Formats: sequence, C-alpha cells, structure tokens
Amino acid sequence: MLDALFSPRSIAVVGVSREKDKVGRIVYDNLVTGGFTGEVYPVNPMVGSIDGREAYPSVLDVPGDIDLAVIVVPARFAADVLDECGTKRVPVAIVISAGFKETGPQGAALERSLVDVARRHDIRLLGPNCLGAISTPSEMNASFALTMPRPGTIAFMSQSGALGTAVLDWTAGQGIGLSHFVSLGNKADISEVDLIRAWAADDRTSVIAAYLEAVSDGAAFVEAVSDLVREKPFVALKSGGSDAGARAVSSHTGSLAGSERAYDAAFLKAGATRARTVEELFDISVALARQPLPEGPGLVILTNAGGPAILATDACERDGVSLAALESETVTALRETLPTAAAFYNPVDVLGDAPARRYADAYRVLAADPNVRAVLVILTPQATTDAVGTADEVVALARETGLTTLACFMGESAVAEAIRVLGEGGIPNYPFPERAIRTFSAMERRRRMLEAPVPVPRRIEGDPGVVRSAIDHARAAGRTFITEQSAARIAAAYGIPVPPAELARDLDDARRVASEIGYPVVMKIASPDILHKSDIGGIRTGIEDEHALAEAYETIIARGRAYMADARIWGVTVQQQVPPGREVIIGVNRDPQFGPLLMFGLGGIYVEVLKDVTFRLCPVNADEARRMMSEIRGFGLLRGARGQRPADLDAVADVITRVSALVTDFPDITELDINPLIVHDKGDGVFAADVRIGIGG
Amino acid sequence: MLDALFSPRSIAVVGVSREKDKVGRIVYDNLVTGGFTGEVYPVNPMVGSIDGREAYPSVLDVPGDIDLAVIVVPARFAADVLDECGTKRVPVAIVISAGFKETGPQGAALERSLVDVARRHDIRLLGPNCLGAISTPSEMNASFALTMPRPGTIAFMSQSGALGTAVLDWTAGQGIGLSHFVSLGNKADISEVDLIRAWAADDRTSVIAAYLEAVSDGAAFVEAVSDLVREKPFVALKSGGSDAGARAVSSHTGSLAGSERAYDAAFLKAGATRARTVEELFDISVALARQPLPEGPGLVILTNAGGPAILATDACERDGVSLAALESETVTALRETLPTAAAFYNPVDVLGDAPARRYADAYRVLAADPNVRAVLVILTPQATTDAVGTADEVVALARETGLTTLACFMGESAVAEAIRVLGEGGIPNYPFPERAIRTFSAMERRRRMLEAPVPVPRRIEGDPGVVRSAIDHARAAGRTFITEQSAARIAAAYGIPVPPAELARDLDDARRVASEIGYPVVMKIASPDILHKSDIGGIRTGIEDEHALAEAYETIIARGRAYMADARIWGVTVQQQVPPGREVIIGVNRDPQFGPLLMFGLGGIYVEVLKDVTFRLCPVNADEARRMMSEIRGFGLLRGARGQRPADLDAVADVITRVSALVTDFPDITELDINPLIVHDKGDGVFAADVRIGIGG
Repeated sequence: MLDALFSPRSIAVVGVSREKDKVGRIVYDNLVTGGFTGEVYPVNPMVGSIDGREAYPSVLDVPGDIDLAVIVVPARFAADVLDECGTKRVPVAIVISAGFKETGPQGAALERSLVDVARRHDIRLLGPNCLGAISTPSEMNASFALTMPRPGTIAFMSQSGALGTAVLDWTAGQGIGLSHFVSLGNKADISEVDLIRAWAADDRTSVIAAYLEAVSDGAAFVEAVSDLVREKPFVALKSGGSDAGARAVSSHTGSLAGSERAYDAAFLKAGATRARTVEELFDISVALARQPLPEGPGLVILTNAGGPAILATDACERDGVSLAALESETVTALRETLPTAAAFYNPVDVLGDAPARRYADAYRVLAADPNVRAVLVILTPQATTDAVGTADEVVALARETGLTTLACFMGESAVAEAIRVLGEGGIPNYPFPERAIRTFSAMERRRRMLEAPVPVPRRIEGDPGVVRSAIDHARAAGRTFITEQSAARIAAAYGIPVPPAELARDLDDARRVASEIGYPVVMKIASPDILHKSDIGGIRTGIEDEHALAEAYETIIARGRAYMADARIWGVTVQQQVPPGREVIIGVNRDPQFGPLLMFGLGGIYVEVLKDVTFRLCPVNADEARRMMSEIRGFGLLRGARGQRPADLDAVADVITRVSALVTDFPDITELDINPLIVHDKGDGVFAADVRIGIGG
Repeated sequence: MLDALFSPRSIAVVGVSREKDKVGRIVYDNLVTGGFTGEVYPVNPMVGSIDGREAYPSVLDVPGDIDLAVIVVPARFAADVLDECGTKRVPVAIVISAGFKETGPQGAALERSLVDVARRHDIRLLGPNCLGAISTPSEMNASFALTMPRPGTIAFMSQSGALGTAVLDWTAGQGIGLSHFVSLGNKADISEVDLIRAWAADDRTSVIAAYLEAVSDGAAFVEAVSDLVREKPFVALKSGGSDAGARAVSSHTGSLAGSERAYDAAFLKAGATRARTVEELFDISVALARQPLPEGPGLVILTNAGGPAILATDACERDGVSLAALESETVTALRETLPTAAAFYNPVDVLGDAPARRYADAYRVLAADPNVRAVLVILTPQATTDAVGTADEVVALARETGLTTLACFMGESAVAEAIRVLGEGGIPNYPFPERAIRTFSAMERRRRMLEAPVPVPRRIEGDPGVVRSAIDHARAAGRTFITEQSAARIAAAYGIPVPPAELARDLDDARRVASEIGYPVVMKIASPDILHKSDIGGIRTGIEDEHALAEAYETIIARGRAYMADARIWGVTVQQQVPPGREVIIGVNRDPQFGPLLMFGLGGIYVEVLKDVTFRLCPVNADEARRMMSEIRGFGLLRGARGQRPADLDAVADVITRVSALVTDFPDITELDINPLIVHDKGDGVFAADVRIGIGG
C-alpha cells in the first residue's frame, strides 16, 4: 500500500532551490547523488534549471508519472501543491515543510486543509514537519538527512526528526544497517500503524524499531503490533514517561493508572519489545536482526578472564537471565579439552593465554550440551590473545551450530579488527559484559513471549439486560455513578460473587431482610446524596441480632440526617456479613487511548501506601490474571506465607476475567473498583464486599 | 610511602627474556620505549645482554640503587629473587608472576613465603599474579599491558588484570586520561587501602576509580575512603553481587543481610560513589575529574531538538535529578533572546536551525538564573547545525561561568570534531541523553553526600556490667543465645524500653508478678530448650485476671512438656501486655568483613514477604536512623497514612541509636532482633516486645 513511498520509480521534489544549503535542494541532491536509479524531477516555478537540469514549474508539467512527491514549500502553499499532485494522480506525498500543527491554531488549520486535499485525492501523506524517508533497497534518500545508512534489515521510524538525524549518523558510525528510515513528523495521515503494516509485509525488513512519543490510535496500534510480532520483532522506545499532568479521578485505580501505565500495558499486550534508551533500542534491534532467538533458557559464558565473567554473572542476576547448568559429560569433556587451571563450570574460563583454537574447542564442547542455548563469548586482549583468530572461529561455530551467539570483545584498538570480523559474521559485539547481558535479556523476554500461548479472551455469558438498565437508570437520574445496590447487581449479573443484600425502607423491613439473609449482617445507609458512607458513620458491621439491628438502624439514619438535613435517604442496605479473609483490589480505569486498563493489587494499605499493583489492558483471560497476581511484591501473602493456607487464586482469577468481560461489553463503564474483594482460603471462594462503578460524564 | 612505586628513579626488571613476546621482555620494552627517563636494569642470569644492553645476573650485581623491582620469574624462584631485593634494599617490588594462591594450596604456600620475605626486609609488595603498574607523570609503564594511557588525573586500580588491559585499551580509544593504573593481583601485601592512602596524597590524582571483587580489610577500607572522599571522589565498581552461598542464620536480619548488603552499606558509610557497570565507572570518574560539582540542585537542559530533551527529562525522573525551575525574569530574557517558536521553559529548545551564537545567548541568560546550577547541552546535527562552533561556545561559557556543564552531541561523524573540542575544553560528552543524566545523577549524589553533616556517632551511657554478666552467664552455660529475660535486661541496660516482666517459677509466683505488673499480661514459657515459643503454643496473650492466668499457666507448662518431655522448664515469664501499635523490626547481623550491620523495616509480613528493609553499618546516629526510616517503601505507614496519626519516629530513631551503641560496645553480640518494636503514636513512645540476642559459637 505504501510501495510508492519505499520503492518509487519516479520522484518529484517540489520546492527545489538553487542554493545548495536549502532543505529542498538538499533533498534533491540526496536523491540524485545517493544512488537512486529512478527518475527525479525538480519542481519550482521560480528557477529555470537546477544544476543544468530543467526544473518544472509544477508537477502538472512533469512529462511522466510521479510515484512520490516530496514537498518542501512554505506551509501556506503546501495544500495547493498537494492538490496539483492529486490532479497528477501521485499516490504518496511527503510534506517536509514545517509551520503546521506544531506552531499553533493557524498551523493546525493549514494542516487540516492539507489532510482534506489528501483525502479528496486519495493521496497518502507523510508528515508534515518531518525529515523525510529513506529506503536502502531503493537506494533512495528522500530526506534532508545527510547520511545514507548502510543496507540492513532494521526498519526504523522516529517521531522526532532531530533524533532521526542523530541516529542515522550514529548507526552509520556503528556499522548498523537499515532497510528503511521514516521520520513521522506530525502524523497528519501516515502513522506508526501504517508503517508497521507496510514493513510487516516487507521481505527486506526483519526487525521494526521505533522511537515514539505517542501513538495515534491505541487500538489500531495494539492490533497492528499483535499481528506482527510473532513474525517480526517490534522494538520500541517510548518517551514522555512523566505523568505530571493532574487528572481528575475518583477511584483508587484511576489515581494509580495514567498514560504511562497504559502504554506499558499496551506494549505488553501487543508483544512489543520495550527499550528504555536509544542505545538499548539499537542493541536489541541489532541482536534480533542478526542472531536467532535462543531455543530455551540457558546461557553459557565463555571467557578468557575472570573479572568480566563475574560482571556478566552479576548482570545475569540483575536482568533475570538464567545461566545454563552444564551436564556432567560436558564438564568432563571440558576437563579433557582445556588446561587444568581453566574453569569448567559456567562461566567457562579458557584462561588468559587462550589461543583461538582453545576458544573453539570449548565452544564445540558446550554446543553439544542440551542445556546450552546461547553463548556469550568474552575476550580481553591479553599479551598473547589472538582476537581476530578467535572472532573467525566464533563466526564459523555460530553458523555451524545455530546457537545464539553474542560477543564482548573488550577494549578498543586491540579488538577493532576482530569486532569488524564479528560484525561481518553477524555476531553483535558489546564493549562491556553488562550491555551484552541486558541485550540478551530482551531476547529472552521475546522468546518467553513467543512461547506463551496467544491469549484467548474468555467469553462470559453475563446478563447484559441488568447492566444496561442500571446504567440507563443512573443516566436518567443524572448520576455519573451507579448506586451501591445497582453496582452489586451488575457484578452479580456477570457472575461476580457478591454477598446477599437488600434495601430495607424502614426498620421492620430491615428486620425481615436480616432474618431472610441470616445474622450477622452489615448495614449501610442508602442515599444517592451520600457517597462516602463510612466517613459519616453510615456503616455498621457485626450486627448479631434484632436488638442490635434496631439500635444500628436508628443511629445510621440519624447520622445521615445530621450529615445533610435534606439528603434523600432511601433506607438502609442490609447485607450478609462476609467472614474476614485476605483483601485484594480489582479495578478498571478507561484509558482514552487504549481503553479499559485493569488493575490488580492487595487491598488497603498495600494499594494506598505501597502502591503494590499491576496493570493489563482488557481483555484479560485467566492465564493473564494468574500472571498479574504473581507480579505483585506481596504475592507471598496470597500464595500462603507464614504458615497460612494459600488463598483461592482460581476464584480471584475468575473475578478478574469477569470484570474484564463486563467493562469490555459496556464501554459506558469508565471506572470500576472492587475494593475489597475478600479472598478466602483455596476452594472457599471470594466475595466482592464493595463494588463502585462510574459511568463518566 | 609508595613513592617508589609511582615515581621510581630506577627500576630493575628481573626475568627479562630475549624473546620479544615473553612477559618479562614486554615489561622491559614498555619501560625502555615508553618514555621512562630513569634507569632501567635488565636482570637475568641466563642471558648476557638484552638488545645490546648488559643484563645483570642478579639485582645484587646492579651498580646503582634500585627503587622498584619488577619480578617476572617462575613462582618457585620469586621468594629468592625478593630476598636478594631485600639485601639490595629495594623498597618496593611488583611480582607479576602467576602460580601463587590462585592455583591452590601449593601456590598459597609459595605466596606466604613471598610475604614473609617482604616483611623481613620491609619491602612493599604489589601482586603477585598481576599486570603491573603504570604512572603517566613518570611516563612509567611497569606492566605488560601494551597501551600507555594518556596523561590525566584519574587513578584506576583493578582487581582483575584482564579487565585492566581491556580498560586501558578502551580508555585510550575514548581519550580518557589516567594518572596511575595498578593491577592489584592477589593483594598479598599492597591492597586497595594502601593505594587509596597513596593516591589521596597524590597531587596529580583528582579521582580514584576502582574495580574490586572484595576488600581485604573492611574497617580499614571504610576508614581510608572516609578520610579521602571529602577531598577526592572514590568511584567503585564492586562485582560478585550474587549471594548464592547458603549461610546458616537464625535471625530475620541474618537471613536478609549478606555480603552484598554489607558492601552497599560500607560504600554508603564511607561516602564512596558506586558504579554499576564499567561504562558508568568511567562516565562518572571522567565527569568528576573534569567538571566541578553543581553547587545545588537545578539542572537545565539546553537543546536544539524536542525528542532528545524528552528522553533527558524522562531520565531525570528515573534517576532522581531535579530540573531547575526558571525565574520569570529568565523566561522573559529568553523570550527576548530566542525566536518566538523556541521553548522558554526547562528544557529550553533553541530550535533545529540554531547557530552556535543562539546556544551561547541562551546559555548566558540561563547562567544568570540563581536556580540553575548545571547545564546539559544537547545538540543534534541538523541541516544547518554548527557543531564545532557550538562546542567552542560551550567550552568558553562553562569556563567563564563555572557552571557544571555536560554535553550530549548526538551522532558520529557529524559531531566527532565537536566532541574533540568539547573534550579538550573539559566538557564530557555522552552519545545519548540517558547516559548524560545517569552520570549527572551520580554527581548529584556526591554533592548531597558532601552537603550532609559528617555523622557523629551518639555516645550512650549504658550499663555494660549488666550486658557483660549476661553474656558471660550464657557462655558459661554453653549457650550461643541470651535467654529472653536476659536479653530484655540487656536492652534495658542500654535504655531501650522493654515492657516490665519477671520470671515466675510456679503459679503462685505468677499470680504475684501479674498483680505487681498489673493486668492484662502476656505469659511465655521459660526454657533454655525451647527457642521458638509461639510454634509450640508456649505464648498466651491478653490474660485479663487471675482465673485466666491459672488456666494459661497450666496449658503453657503442659504444652512445653508435650513438646519435649525432658525440657528444662524454668517456669513462665509474665510480661506486661503492651497496647497494640505499629510494628517495626530493628536487627543487627555482624558481617565478617564490615562488622555490625543494622537493619530497619516494618515488622511481620512486611519483612517476611515484602522484604521492605534497609541497612546501615554501625554506628548509626539519629540522623541516619531517620534516613533509614524514610527509605523503606512503607514509610507512609509510619509517617501517618489513611488518616492515622504519625508514629513516634523520634522514639524509633532513639532505639536504633541505642542498639547501634550496644552492638558496637559488645563485639560478642553476633545477632540481635527486636521484633516487633511496638511503635505508638508520636509522643507515646515504643516498646521492644521481643528481643533476641545471639552471641555466636
């Protein structure tokens, strides 16, 4: 669909100048001198010719077809130029010009008219306010970046043009190859989703790397990445992590959620590989592009020095990488192969005087061990070290065995040639062990993600009629929340266990309800005007008999009146008192970009002080729910610490999936907190003691 | 004291070979060709001459004095050679030869005899099994590393020789200068402490950087670093972080402590700057060597592109770096100075087309703002960017203003020359913003450390007689722990509030004690054979009257008998029941290297499941105790969350300092747990409800 952007046969550059340092001219020169073999048409009504070549007054004057137009004219003329492109039936245009949305309301209006023109003519538009695009298979540099990257299989998109130029220069220096580079600019039309889809279908791209500041359409993004990642890795650096903006939220979940939590959850849901720094973005992308994923856990460290191996081992522990436990046959074989002073366990130390051959012998022995799925080869340049020879052996053995192989040849000039040999042989090298392990840990995360089953959302056959009518009722009453009683009914309609409860209009009614439910009971004031019942003393627990019930009823009603003389008091909710248990919170907050974001945590102080919570985008199935539980720091309390029996984790997972289904079925629900969900011992179930539901404005 | 190691006038290399690639010969050639201007004497009885120069059969045959001997002979001959050095009155020797402690018991014996010889002759000994030493002020490369570093003011020691070679090669490539380099080897004599002391007194060294795997003498290390760090930074990378070894511990504190916690606490106590990777070690060292520390908090980011500035801002949040809030005068001045599209708040964006001049103008305006103490200059190489000109301006302005200045000129070839200019002007450059901020955060940590008052340990006038006799009594009884009653008395002797309690030998006695103490009381079985009283039901709480007391007494004694028929049961401890409060744990575990390590945390599940604890080396004063409290994640529970009143933090800090004094005064105490310390509301004090003290084997 975006073929014309990456493999055009002909390109018009509109706004080419005679002056060499103007942006339009740089783009034109980049195309003409950069190896692009298609037609390049300079367009500018004001100059007769560019570098001895005839310039066309308009794209309409260009004799042949134009596959791609690069527009570098002042913002106010861009829409007219684009309109002419439409008449000329140009399928794709890049608007490099700045002066649009990024400058304020006037620019935003110009950008809207640009988009209108594009839509009318069915032109796909990259930019405006961007650096352009580069495609190495077409040898096309349709940007004003001065660096043409080397050919490679990493496609890189950047939402910052300046970061793009810097990265292009840096990747060239590092010998990192790219298939395509796109500067996204203002994303008026073409977005990250279009590029993901295009590059997913592109044979010359094996890894998609992205620097993003925000995504344009959360759902489409998650879908596009999800569709992609089982075939090709998507590695992303997302900036703008600070959630400084104050937001009006009334729920616990809302106060702990926020756009960064939502992005984290979205990347996780989609199976993206997340990088935290620019360096990591490319370390990980290069490793994924050049090396196979390990086929299971089990890294072996092969070194000629102890110190760096210890640093690597430390990093493994920090980054959750498991070292392979070698079979005893392997250790025996190493003993037979290596000098007696060598270390035969993992890390395997071939000693400071190791020739290339000794590295190779050890590698071969290790490769035969079924527990070894990846090798990190560490080399320090000592007196007799043959760095290049070792690199040659490592390249050959990695090819031969198919084992995931990374290298850490340390130093600078003493290992420069060896690192070149490694690079040509497809083995990424890292200057220090810690960076190698950090990169490997990302490969491991991707392996585990691919090995986990694709999550299938659970279908819950709820009773949508109950929910619909409760929501409609609240809306009709002008409320942005569902009353407690209704919220409990909604939960019950989706199979979430709630304690039996009923609204009692007066004391007699309360007696009747209590005797039906059975003592002990809890009583709570029922009033649409009193939201925080416990704050005004509107809740009484542990009511054991009729006498206590009568006393409690009077007190509660009196307190309600005292709090607000004209409050509408419907009576008192009488509810079965749930036996105590461990308390957890399950909540949902609807993210404007990614939709319902489900939170799980331990209740009470754990959520309020320790903020020991975890998030997922909905839908969440039982597997994911179990994983959420295991992610919180206090999981030991649920699994059964201090001699306690384990809690009913299956019942908690069941409620999580039901909440997920409920909020997925009803987009009206903007916030939901079950706080607490009382969790009894394994097999004894759970109860949603308090359910709050918000339905927005 | 080690002058002869770093500034010798004459050096003998013992074991020089005719073959160019032998270690002894490499050392000799490094000295002769590396610029060293003193005398270099080749010593070898087997060769007549080296490179046309007469070789001496022994150091005794060398005509002049020898300040430094470098010994590169087989391990079994090293002691004899050293003995001759002693006769020759050589003050310092480097033994490069391997084959000592690192190879097993035989080598260890050789190493011991080497040390004996050194002690007898008063020779200071570096190594054995090391790479050697390098000193750029003397242009001396007394090592077999092939790289002579550039001159600089960072002194670097490495406990791994191989890491040393790699780092020397790498620093040369990075343009990082060193004053000295020492490979520590087996540390038979000269240790990190000697080097710290020597380099502390060395004018040519401004920063000491160290790669360490373990320190030789914990107390001496902490003292040496503490003496140093207010004058010169000590930056250390300590490897070997995984505490895999299972250790026999019986206390909570012991199970959570461990050598890594002790190292962390020791580095913190000493004021060392800790690096987590080799790259960080040098990033931080270079920044501290070349830039002044900021005079207060307040970093400003000055950039020509938005994307990298956002990444820098994200990193600031991650690493705890505070951005300067600009004065309104500054913003106004920036508005007058910069184009209207620029960003006038922090980060300050001078826009993609910024010439060097514009950077300079903005820098000058920012430097006048009292809230700005440091500047990170970010530059991306865009179409019209003048990287070199900007570098020139930044160098001049940093000098002129004295502001801490770091740079992030991104890219490779487009910024290479500018980075060289920055480097020559003393401005460290980082390829990506995240690394710049991470480095700056280390500078900030050092600034805050220097600003904090030097901790003065609190003197507690305890009653040591009580403690001494309790310990002696337990030892006499062959116990490795103090009984509960005695432990409470020990605590009380150091002013730690414990609830009144007394041992009751029989029921009548229990009645008497309870009426004296006042109900409610707690009763606990008193037996030297029953350590975990609650596990066998040997504790009863909430005893309200004589009747309950009698019932509880019988039950407890019966349970003790049932648990162990022949247990020695002394009776029952009757203790005042402390009203409930928040529970914390204060514990001490004696680290073999660093001595008493004090732990603070919230009690119960917080310590057991969440492991929400923090550590300090003793002594701990009240300021440090307050800082410990604020470090735990659950601090909100003590400060007063959910409408609770704040806890009595002063009383907790008081107990921490008293525990610290107790374990410092009595090295016999190997383990101590106060678990729980019951903490009442502010002003209402604390009670040590349970005190356990271990006195080791």
